[in-house]
Amino acid sequence: MSNIQFSTDDQKVLESIMQHRRDVRGNRFIDQDVADEAIEQLLLAALHAPSVGFSQPWEFVLVRDSETKAQIAASFNEENDKAIAQFQDAKQKEYVRLKLEGIREAPVNIAVFYKPSLGPVLGQTSMEEVGRYSVVCAVQNMWLMARAMNIGMGWVSILDPQKVKTILGAPERNELIAYLCVGYVDEFLPRPELEILQWEKRKALQSVVYTEAYDK
Amino acid sequence: MSNIQFSTDDQKVLESIMQHRRDVRGNRFIDQDVADEAIEQLLLAALHAPSVGFSQPWEFVLVRDSETKAQIAASFNEENDKAIAQFQDAKQKEYVRLKLEGIREAPVNIAVFYKPSLGPVLGQTSMEEVGRYSVVCAVQNMWLMARAMNIGMGWVSILDPQKVKTILGAPERNELIAYLCVGYVDEFLPRPELEILQWEKRKALQSVVYTEAYDK
Repeated sequence: MSNIQFSTDDQKVLESIMQHRRDVRGNRFIDQDVADEAIEQLLLAALHAPSVGFSQPWEFVLVRDSETKAQIAASFNEENDKAIAQFQDAKQKEYVRLKLEGIREAPVNIAVFYKPSLGPVLGQTSMEEVGRYSVVCAVQNMWLMARAMNIGMGWVSILDPQKVKTILGAPERNELIAYLCVGYVDEFLPRPELEILQWEKRKALQSVVYTEAYDK
Repeated sequence: MSNIQFSTDDQKVLESIMQHRRDVRGNRFIDQDVADEAIEQLLLAALHAPSVGFSQPWEFVLVRDSETKAQIAASFNEENDKAIAQFQDAKQKEYVRLKLEGIREAPVNIAVFYKPSLGPVLGQTSMEEVGRYSVVCAVQNMWLMARAMNIGMGWVSILDPQKVKTILGAPERNELIAYLCVGYVDEFLPRPELEILQWEKRKALQSVVYTEAYDK
């Protein structure tokens, strides 16, 4: 079964999904619910992500309740106010104009947690952080699957992870990895919004690839 | 352009790629080189990953040199010896029988680094770790693209990241995120090897999903 050979057409489908995936914010989500079956399809994509030592150290909290969303949004507002102060002059003026989350606009929010194992995990003994990285691989699988299903997803990282844990009643040892906003959209932008706005330039391949070592 | 609607056939292609992706070790790689064009296709998939504030904080070092691979493998052996001691009894006996890397067997190794920005990054002001998570998203894009191209990839995390940095001459502020082994394979296993060997059981969806909060 797993010796299935994928075709160049399959590669092109994957490439297209990757290229058209966007980080979606609240100004794009429309008022249309996402069915439980669709959310389950996203979660099943997550469960097929790689994980160190097959530890599958992920947990997901689905949030639809508006009171919970309001509490999360309050943490965003607080953290975003602090963030604004870190940018200067023109960049700060541009920053405040950006819509950076869709917590209340998206019908479904998904908080993704890392649940550390109690014992040693194969492959995690030298680089403890790879447990968290497994959870990130699951998030990226969800993001690609969402785009393939024509569903928008946004990752909100301007949050106090401790407050999010408290709001959601997460166990003390769990760590918040990602807070995702999920819903249908009016459009997927042709390029990343921050590229369109020239906040940052797209890096060329040759500027980030080295051969054999950094020095050579 | 980005308003392209993907079909259920497209979703099925993506789902199949995700389900047939494997972590590939040295007992599966065959002696067949991977063309530069194929490696470039993997790297282009990486460059289309999401990144916090469009910071694209990734750097890649391509390694084909056998002397460099031998040095990396030496770090693996040293760290793996330490790892063995962390497992007990039957688990330890099973651990030592596993082939956990393909550093020398794979024709191409790719070290993936996180290059932190010097100034503030939009979206990274409250959770600094999301810069590293962007790099992990790039790795997962590469992994899926490799499988779509019928190329195997393995992630080696039993390494001393500081030694890898020294071997590859990485700048002090860069951090090793992943060390990847890339090459053609004799077969992709039908299920993850650690699942087949019953090292860990596959988790069911309902065991990792909560609704509204952990307590409810």
